[in-house]
Amino acid sequence: MAEVAKYKEVAKFFEDFEIGETRTTAGRTITEADFVMHAMHSGDWMPHHTDAEWCKTQPFKEPIIHGNATFSISTGLCIQGEPLNPHGMSYGYDKIRYPKPVFAGDTIQVKITVIDKRDHPKQPSHGLITEEKITTNQNDEVVCVAHHVIYVEKRHP
Amino acid sequence: MAEVAKYKEVAKFFEDFEIGETRTTAGRTITEADFVMHAMHSGDWMPHHTDAEWCKTQPFKEPIIHGNATFSISTGLCIQGEPLNPHGMSYGYDKIRYPKPVFAGDTIQVKITVIDKRDHPKQPSHGLITEEKITTNQNDEVVCVAHHVIYVEKRHP
Amino acid sequence: MAEVAKYKEVAKFFEDFEIGETRTTAGRTITEADFVMHAMHSGDWMPHHTDAEWCKTQPFKEPIIHGNATFSISTGLCIQGEPLNPHGMSYGYDKIRYPKPVFAGDTIQVKITVIDKRDHPKQPSHGLITEEKITTNQNDEVVCVAHHVIYVEKRHP
Amino acid sequence: MAEVAKYKEVAKFFEDFEIGETRTTAGRTITEADFVMHAMHSGDWMPHHTDAEWCKTQPFKEPIIHGNATFSISTGLCIQGEPLNPHGMSYGYDKIRYPKPVFAGDTIQVKITVIDKRDHPKQPSHGLITEEKITTNQNDEVVCVAHHVIYVEKRHP
Amino acid sequence: MAEVAKYKEVAKFFEDFEIGETRTTAGRTITEADFVMHAMHSGDWMPHHTDAEWCKTQPFKEPIIHGNATFSISTGLCIQGEPLNPHGMSYGYDKIRYPKPVFAGDTIQVKITVIDKRDHPKQPSHGLITEEKITTNQNDEVVCVAHHVIYVEKRHP
Amino acid sequence: MAEVAKYKEVAKFFEDFEIGETRTTAGRTITEADFVMHAMHSGDWMPHHTDAEWCKTQPFKEPIIHGNATFSISTGLCIQGEPLNPHGMSYGYDKIRYPKPVFAGDTIQVKITVIDKRDHPKQPSHGLITEEKITTNQNDEVVCVAHHVIYVEKRHP
Repeated sequence: MAEVAKYKEVAKFFEDFEIGETRTTAGRTITEADFVMHAMHSGDWMPHHTDAEWCKTQPFKEPIIHGNATFSISTGLCIQGEPLNPHGMSYGYDKIRYPKPVFAGDTIQVKITVIDKRDHPKQPSHGLITEEKITTNQNDEVVCVAHHVIYVEKRHP
Repeated sequence: MAEVAKYKEVAKFFEDFEIGETRTTAGRTITEADFVMHAMHSGDWMPHHTDAEWCKTQPFKEPIIHGNATFSISTGLCIQGEPLNPHGMSYGYDKIRYPKPVFAGDTIQVKITVIDKRDHPKQPSHGLITEEKITTNQNDEVVCVAHHVIYVEKRHP
Repeated sequence: MAEVAKYKEVAKFFEDFEIGETRTTAGRTITEADFVMHAMHSGDWMPHHTDAEWCKTQPFKEPIIHGNATFSISTGLCIQGEPLNPHGMSYGYDKIRYPKPVFAGDTIQVKITVIDKRDHPKQPSHGLITEEKITTNQNDEVVCVAHHVIYVEKRHP
Repeated sequence: MAEVAKYKEVAKFFEDFEIGETRTTAGRTITEADFVMHAMHSGDWMPHHTDAEWCKTQPFKEPIIHGNATFSISTGLCIQGEPLNPHGMSYGYDKIRYPKPVFAGDTIQVKITVIDKRDHPKQPSHGLITEEKITTNQNDEVVCVAHHVIYVEKRHP
Repeated sequence: MAEVAKYKEVAKFFEDFEIGETRTTAGRTITEADFVMHAMHSGDWMPHHTDAEWCKTQPFKEPIIHGNATFSISTGLCIQGEPLNPHGMSYGYDKIRYPKPVFAGDTIQVKITVIDKRDHPKQPSHGLITEEKITTNQNDEVVCVAHHVIYVEKRHP
Repeated sequence: MAEVAKYKEVAKFFEDFEIGETRTTAGRTITEADFVMHAMHSGDWMPHHTDAEWCKTQPFKEPIIHGNATFSISTGLCIQGEPLNPHGMSYGYDKIRYPKPVFAGDTIQVKITVIDKRDHPKQPSHGLITEEKITTNQNDEVVCVAHHVIYVEKRHP
């Protein structure tokens, strides 16, 4: 059988991450179709997202997309075009906040910064890296903050 | 204009939440179509999720769904059929973990438990409730843990 | 194996239904994405729904969503959050009408009323309940009428 | 502006329909993705359709697709490639039944027969045509029956 | 087993195609949802299609749909309602061009013309037919040109 | 307004392309859901792709995905993670062929090779680059060949 689907890898050990390292992603405009797609797939049809009449009676006056949609799309933006790191894997999230709503027509983008490095409490061979992912809209307002924790092998445990 | 989309409301103040309260959701079988749908909408086509040949070379041997897909679908399960609480709103998440993978064909279900109540650090009128959402598969294995924080008005601040 | 996906059940025998009983659903705004989604899934690309230029030459001047889309979405609204009834199952529909068109941006909601109870012609153990589902738009205009027949076990046949 | 989207028309007055006229459609295999797509778009996640574990405890042992999905897809099959009739429009349905379930992997096809012609009760210029649409699976079992009523202009009122 | 999914066939040999033969398709309005759907399914999230802010800095000022989306949808329009030809099969394309962009809200339609007939270089039993598919928008501007080659059996090789 | 959605650019003039340059993409497993998604979005429900019963009577015995689906997904694979080239833009395709079918469960990958450079016939400031995109399956069989033409500015016209 052939050598199929070889992925670009960039080996990065725990020691190779530096606090303050940063990168930014592409942007993506959130459309009304994205509201429908997330409501459909998650099954979350709360009126805040999909009932325009009810929204007129609320502070924001129009539908706002599900926080988790912003979060999932932000995660996707962070991953597109990134190489695989054979020494790391996703460990989870330590915090997610949605400080401002996202409306149909807004364009979001994510900035990723390494904000923490620490030993793993039980595995001396590995450490935990925290990346802060700040999603902003076209007016530079923060619409999502996510602290992503990555479990990374140490070069010299 | 008519009275449209009146939502079932259950008023629940901060004082009304009790640590240990619990409820469970419906179940949902995760299909191959759900893998494709989440990859499509998030734009996250990492080979762990959508390259079956590459997965054969990995520990799990077959594709596993994106953690965020499990998280979003779990959130949807928690919300379906729930009334609105006019005194509360989602504040964010304090922790998300994916202890075990979810494969195509697995059926997930969520159990929600109130695990914490605390005053809001700055707003004396409100408190913060933490609900732990434990998603399990058909073998009772935990596949997702999420700590959801809700910002709730106090009846007697 | 674990006790998975236990559904909320509300046992309701034939005798428990009363003509005139009523309930209303949540609302949902019909977006352009819903037009595309229904056309895609059903394969019905009639110009009334998806050719805006041709629609300009017609009485309604703009695309109207497929009647069956309104019907399916109305059915979904009726079901969300409803408990299972172990004594009943869907028997079919006796009538569906679409008195007014639904345009992109309209918000629909359904009102369900029990309008008929009758014995099943052949099964003395069961009866037939008819629920009228009236879908209205944000201006209180009726856009869909569906008579749903449910086959329900009798407590005392 | 250009002559865009000219549709094939076949003028057919009330007098031109004959009881017993028949035609058959193409076939379509119902996939697991169709279950997900209909559940997503309608918002109907009843366990009969999307909880494979629960279905194991039920008579059919595996998920069955929503009746309305079969109905919508059948309607789409009936319409593909059909010309427009400038003298007719859909009036609604007089009956829908789902005698047998449809499972993932089944292939459905529709046979359409004109079964009734009658005057419109109030409009002497028009009549009502009833087409019976019988959807069968690959074993020739009937899985959906729908009586479609069409409102058609008379050539000689 | 039943006779399922019998397709309308129109037998057309190589000799039956005439240069200059032409037909036109139905129209379809390209919506914002179509942009999202094609980006999702292809995984092509180039900013020209899905980043409205970036597009404001570009010559077209707003997103333009992927050329391949226009091409795929045009192909779909050409096929709807067409009979099968048991003597022909698609061989590929000899040219695709996208002379003008397609914006959300544009309505496209396709005109198909037989522009070439030639012997197959190696198979004397078959020939190659080239159909030119010209996709235009509502202003009669050409937005896609595709030369489709069909491999067709000869009646008298 | 903020600096949003800044894209990674790699400036590459006509002179910078070399015949024989090559790169490969990630892989993607084609699922049954991809068949449905492409049929849905394009509106192409030919039985070769979506009628499993009819396919049993044909040489391949099971459904094969639309050639244009393979082509669109291959294009998406080629683009993910690629920087923008401010000096180039897509000009079209000179050839597309589908030598072997793609079945559900196959995993595809694309290899891109620069195979031609030529002056533009009318614009001395620009040239045309041809990239050959060869899509293979997990058995190294070629399933799609596409000659993509790019219109690129010259550094020294």
